[in-house]
Amino acid sequence: MTKKKELRIGLIGCGFMGRTHSNGYLRVGNFFPELTYQPVLKAVCSRTENKAQAFAGQWGYQSVETDWKSMIARDDIDAIDICTPNDKHAEIAIAAAAAGKMILCEKPLARTLDESRGMVDAIEKAGVANTVWYNYRRIPAVTLAKQIIDSGKLGRIFHYRANFLQDWTINANLPQGGEGLWRMDADVAGSGVVGDLLSHCIDTAIWLNGSIKNVSGMTETFVKERMHQLTGKVEKVNIDDACAFMCRFNNGSLGLFESTRYARGHKALYTFEINGENASIRWDLHDLNRLEYFDNADASTLRGWRSIHVTDGDQPYMDKWWVPGLGIGYEHSFVHQVADFLRSLETGTPCSPTFREALETQQVCQAVLDSAASGTWKNTNA
Amino acid sequence: MTKKKELRIGLIGCGFMGRTHSNGYLRVGNFFPELTYQPVLKAVCSRTENKAQAFAGQWGYQSVETDWKSMIARDDIDAIDICTPNDKHAEIAIAAAAAGKMILCEKPLARTLDESRGMVDAIEKAGVANTVWYNYRRIPAVTLAKQIIDSGKLGRIFHYRANFLQDWTINANLPQGGEGLWRMDADVAGSGVVGDLLSHCIDTAIWLNGSIKNVSGMTETFVKERMHQLTGKVEKVNIDDACAFMCRFNNGSLGLFESTRYARGHKALYTFEINGENASIRWDLHDLNRLEYFDNADASTLRGWRSIHVTDGDQPYMDKWWVPGLGIGYEHSFVHQVADFLRSLETGTPCSPTFREALETQQVCQAVLDSAASGTWKNTNA
Amino acid sequence: MTKKKELRIGLIGCGFMGRTHSNGYLRVGNFFPELTYQPVLKAVCSRTENKAQAFAGQWGYQSVETDWKSMIARDDIDAIDICTPNDKHAEIAIAAAAAGKMILCEKPLARTLDESRGMVDAIEKAGVANTVWYNYRRIPAVTLAKQIIDSGKLGRIFHYRANFLQDWTINANLPQGGEGLWRMDADVAGSGVVGDLLSHCIDTAIWLNGSIKNVSGMTETFVKERMHQLTGKVEKVNIDDACAFMCRFNNGSLGLFESTRYARGHKALYTFEINGENASIRWDLHDLNRLEYFDNADASTLRGWRSIHVTDGDQPYMDKWWVPGLGIGYEHSFVHQVADFLRSLETGTPCSPTFREALETQQVCQAVLDSAASGTWKNTNA
Amino acid sequence: MTKKKELRIGLIGCGFMGRTHSNGYLRVGNFFPELTYQPVLKAVCSRTENKAQAFAGQWGYQSVETDWKSMIARDDIDAIDICTPNDKHAEIAIAAAAAGKMILCEKPLARTLDESRGMVDAIEKAGVANTVWYNYRRIPAVTLAKQIIDSGKLGRIFHYRANFLQDWTINANLPQGGEGLWRMDADVAGSGVVGDLLSHCIDTAIWLNGSIKNVSGMTETFVKERMHQLTGKVEKVNIDDACAFMCRFNNGSLGLFESTRYARGHKALYTFEINGENASIRWDLHDLNRLEYFDNADASTLRGWRSIHVTDGDQPYMDKWWVPGLGIGYEHSFVHQVADFLRSLETGTPCSPTFREALETQQVCQAVLDSAASGTWKNTNA
Repeated sequence: MTKKKELRIGLIGCGFMGRTHSNGYLRVGNFFPELTYQPVLKAVCSRTENKAQAFAGQWGYQSVETDWKSMIARDDIDAIDICTPNDKHAEIAIAAAAAGKMILCEKPLARTLDESRGMVDAIEKAGVANTVWYNYRRIPAVTLAKQIIDSGKLGRIFHYRANFLQDWTINANLPQGGEGLWRMDADVAGSGVVGDLLSHCIDTAIWLNGSIKNVSGMTETFVKERMHQLTGKVEKVNIDDACAFMCRFNNGSLGLFESTRYARGHKALYTFEINGENASIRWDLHDLNRLEYFDNADASTLRGWRSIHVTDGDQPYMDKWWVPGLGIGYEHSFVHQVADFLRSLETGTPCSPTFREALETQQVCQAVLDSAASGTWKNTNA
Repeated sequence: MTKKKELRIGLIGCGFMGRTHSNGYLRVGNFFPELTYQPVLKAVCSRTENKAQAFAGQWGYQSVETDWKSMIARDDIDAIDICTPNDKHAEIAIAAAAAGKMILCEKPLARTLDESRGMVDAIEKAGVANTVWYNYRRIPAVTLAKQIIDSGKLGRIFHYRANFLQDWTINANLPQGGEGLWRMDADVAGSGVVGDLLSHCIDTAIWLNGSIKNVSGMTETFVKERMHQLTGKVEKVNIDDACAFMCRFNNGSLGLFESTRYARGHKALYTFEINGENASIRWDLHDLNRLEYFDNADASTLRGWRSIHVTDGDQPYMDKWWVPGLGIGYEHSFVHQVADFLRSLETGTPCSPTFREALETQQVCQAVLDSAASGTWKNTNA
Repeated sequence: MTKKKELRIGLIGCGFMGRTHSNGYLRVGNFFPELTYQPVLKAVCSRTENKAQAFAGQWGYQSVETDWKSMIARDDIDAIDICTPNDKHAEIAIAAAAAGKMILCEKPLARTLDESRGMVDAIEKAGVANTVWYNYRRIPAVTLAKQIIDSGKLGRIFHYRANFLQDWTINANLPQGGEGLWRMDADVAGSGVVGDLLSHCIDTAIWLNGSIKNVSGMTETFVKERMHQLTGKVEKVNIDDACAFMCRFNNGSLGLFESTRYARGHKALYTFEINGENASIRWDLHDLNRLEYFDNADASTLRGWRSIHVTDGDQPYMDKWWVPGLGIGYEHSFVHQVADFLRSLETGTPCSPTFREALETQQVCQAVLDSAASGTWKNTNA
Repeated sequence: MTKKKELRIGLIGCGFMGRTHSNGYLRVGNFFPELTYQPVLKAVCSRTENKAQAFAGQWGYQSVETDWKSMIARDDIDAIDICTPNDKHAEIAIAAAAAGKMILCEKPLARTLDESRGMVDAIEKAGVANTVWYNYRRIPAVTLAKQIIDSGKLGRIFHYRANFLQDWTINANLPQGGEGLWRMDADVAGSGVVGDLLSHCIDTAIWLNGSIKNVSGMTETFVKERMHQLTGKVEKVNIDDACAFMCRFNNGSLGLFESTRYARGHKALYTFEINGENASIRWDLHDLNRLEYFDNADASTLRGWRSIHVTDGDQPYMDKWWVPGLGIGYEHSFVHQVADFLRSLETGTPCSPTFREALETQQVCQAVLDSAASGTWKNTNA
């Protein structure tokens, strides 16, 4: 067996996303043995040393850092993986780019469009390999949707709709901010469901259906005040608990998006549907191995939505896993993204979505928030 | 408008089935205006005059009888509809045939195979038009299944499986026998779920997949004793509460059937599935307007079970009702059977299933019960 | 049996809705025998005499009219049922009210808010019994949703979302206007999917979740020109093919609505979902006998959306039909509305939705169209 | 961090199951960090050295063997994992036990009941830790089913039914025997779907519902002859392509099982349902993160099957993975079994199913095959 090239990873942040990415690095070699590159878990960084040590032990990182600047300064690290809360993304990415590191950044790119622009400028100036972890593109059923659309089977597109519904913040006694809850602190997260959930929906939508021209949005904060974990005081909640928006795509189709953390009964219901002249597609994260597909070319009395169990070897990524009928899970989307990033290093083709591509999602997010604030339609300038 | 020919109906029995049939007679003219014949509700018969009067008032019968023999003796009645408990089917049918009446008989044909044979002999000797109310054949999705199979799309058939699951008799305090509960009295009903529920499954199966060669059955009576409504005493329960059987069809396929009144959570779950070399079909009474269909000829990455909402004008019977997407209900199967019976009078083609055809279902039922009693396989002699 | 009071019906228009209403009048006595009133099909009116005669023959109307004014002038008619295209609703309703007739009017009330106001004024001045056929309220699963909400089980409401998706006008060769296609002619229909489909969603929403305060809408006409059946010329299409809107309800919850005739694969997918603090509900017309219900009070490891098959005798209207597990269809909602209208005559309580209540739906529709035209939020003034 | 104790694994066989087990060993430390033991991939054995080398490279085994006897003879291996075709299970297990190795054996235990008995005797005499890879028990939804049943919520059990349906051998041109196809060679596999698929259903059933008393089975071989890969000749097919059986459990409930490789449209549809007096449960491998649950104690108008998305931290194993709503896949069941095996080494409690427990499944399999051959009911003697 030929020796693999090492891709030495420095992971910053060891929360939920630190785990999903680490799992991706560890699994990719087992399931994508043909790849030239092999990730090596060189170091993990957390401000709390105990936490970094525990994480390193559990996941096999060779060393720990407590200051991300030290991590970036290390010669034995090729790629920086940014898994911090959103407020650190820009600073770290810009410094890492300046240090010539490859960058894999959790979504959303940053808290604001302005921060994001600075990151893209820095990355492109540095010319380093980069990708943003909009992982849902690489769930096989979603990738299959992309292939179907690219094949032209849908014809002219009329409608795109997507939801991302959760219910975990309904309890008014849930505090905001701090450990485990930074997503509820606007200073850290930048926004609420817009950056956290709608950004996923927008990334997928642009990928599948092209750019969004303009939007009209609405946001709401249902629980106005919550105890802040860091200050111990009841403070105003500044994030959006829920957001819906209508939009027009450049291809003339209409879009409708909604996200909330107040949809009782939905833990993480990410669904999308796209209606074309000749065929339609829909997908649901709660049943992630399936794609539903309606083809108007089927004989008229026998037409119906097809429930495609995307577990066959000729379906995207599925030749790497088990046998037909045996599903995979959420985490595999990250394994696939690692694989595609490694392959991009071989081929020199960027690993989508790049920072540049993810910037467009930020433009839409910003336009949605601006529209909600002003009550008027906003162009995305995308 | 041409004047219609009258088909003067005499209905015997005014329970649940009396209602579904009456509704069929009343509705058929509105939805099948092209038919030459129009049912006229001439008389309804019940041993209890008050009950007959109330029923006649509610459904528009012109007169009442309290003795079915008087009904049969009337000159102004063309067709006798038998909706009594099973123990009266044979006697009434044989007498009605002798009187030259057309006969529409509720299923199962009778309590036993022997009784059924006598009925078929009488009917065929009399040469009168006849049909048995195995209504599920005429749910549009089921009729579509028949059309798909007849078109040859399934290829060689390997498997047939059907369930009819209910849960209404689980409570051990439910009495047996008498008003509303004759289905639990073996003397009246002949059997439990075999005649009541499995007979439906068997009728559909034979229609769709041909004759059944031999069977191996199992029955159980979970609650051994119940208070009898007529005697007021706790008595042994003689019906089968549950029955399963395996079988081989003449075409070489395997069958698996199950019925019970002890499947908590299922009110009336009648499902069937048929697997062929090239395609498969399944249906579920709880969602009766849909047919699921899998076609192996679909492109390999896009194959999946199709959920066909059988509400389009080019699907069976559906040009008679509303517009695509708007479902119909259980009762419509009876309207369809009335329509097909009336049409059979125009064309002279028998209205399936005839008594002769329903006899085959009785043969299978008997073989199942015999097999369960003996613990051995039994030929159906069909 | 006590003799029933007659409610002598004069039906104007004999298209699709003329059929559903007639069926309602004919069936109600069989299934709601306790009612004091019995509809009598006195006359049907169509400008084309042949058509009226054929309809009368098929449905049992005693006479025909070709001028609706003659119908209104008749002494032997108690109630006028308006099933014409939308452009005649106002004129007929106002005249009928002036003549002291009860009025049952197809939805939407009229083409515009202004027309609708005139109708309500006339009706209320006349003080006649009235109702508008927003039939979906009376599908048992939908009525059950109302009961659950009224019981307080949902707690504070956060979200309401509804879709009404069809696909029948995608073909650009489909002509507009005239026989069978007046819904595509803005002069006759007033609007496209807003009045035809969204009005249903809005009526249900207001009934379940209270008044809508303000809206932001978007409309689109995908096929800009079609041949007009009446002129034979290719003309501009003036209806909205698709419409989405966001809104805020008076109770603080957010709403999201969408309707289109360009959602390939959906024949008549009317769905709604309502998310409350403690429980959620959703419903889908394609599977109309079911209600899905999530109750957060269920034990945490055993919580899940419940699929309620609304066919039990203790569920709304279902004591009138068959036995548990056996579903009913679309048409039954009209039978229920007839029954409720007849009962309202007994009790003197109005049969909801009255013209006054339906006016609020018109206010929302108008605000949506105005918002779509202006690109700004609009108050409904409801 | 405390240093972990090593459990040095020797894997015999590197096909599909070699992969799933290896993945289990590699993942367990990341997700179950609290365990004292850590698997170490010491050696993998295949008769073909190239294959062993490639597998070792891909999965990180430290060394390779080409003779399983050499593997068993090694001092640096604690546990033998048997992933060979079925015909080697007995010989290897008996030798490994004699050598004092722990044993993890793929299912079914062996080709025949006799072989299995010999294995159990040897294992128990040696007193070594052991387990059999009936992995489906450890899919969280299935484990939750076990917890619900053990809690007594179902009450008296009436029915158990299970299916395992595939369609991959329908093509008559598919050869039998040899590489990748040993499951179709009765000499190697022992049986067809009985050992391969029904054994899973039986293991789960016994675990959930207790011992099976007697059975009546039916088997079929639809394609009678196939080209044998090893001989190059068309030979008689000796496996069962399909098998159904009825049974009685010791607790008085009825069972119905079916398995086939000829159910067009089903890749790996493993479903089971259990109906109790008070509640029912069902599960489907194609949607493996869900459990359906019906509780008759729910309010009568609000009762329905609950669709439980088993992804919450208080549900079995799910505190180890991601966040609510994010599903896991098929392979995780093996990670869980590894974790439970490691824990059993800490606690001294056997890791179910042990060889002894798996023997009972063999008894049922044998009785089914014997019954199918004789056409009579057979006791399982379990």
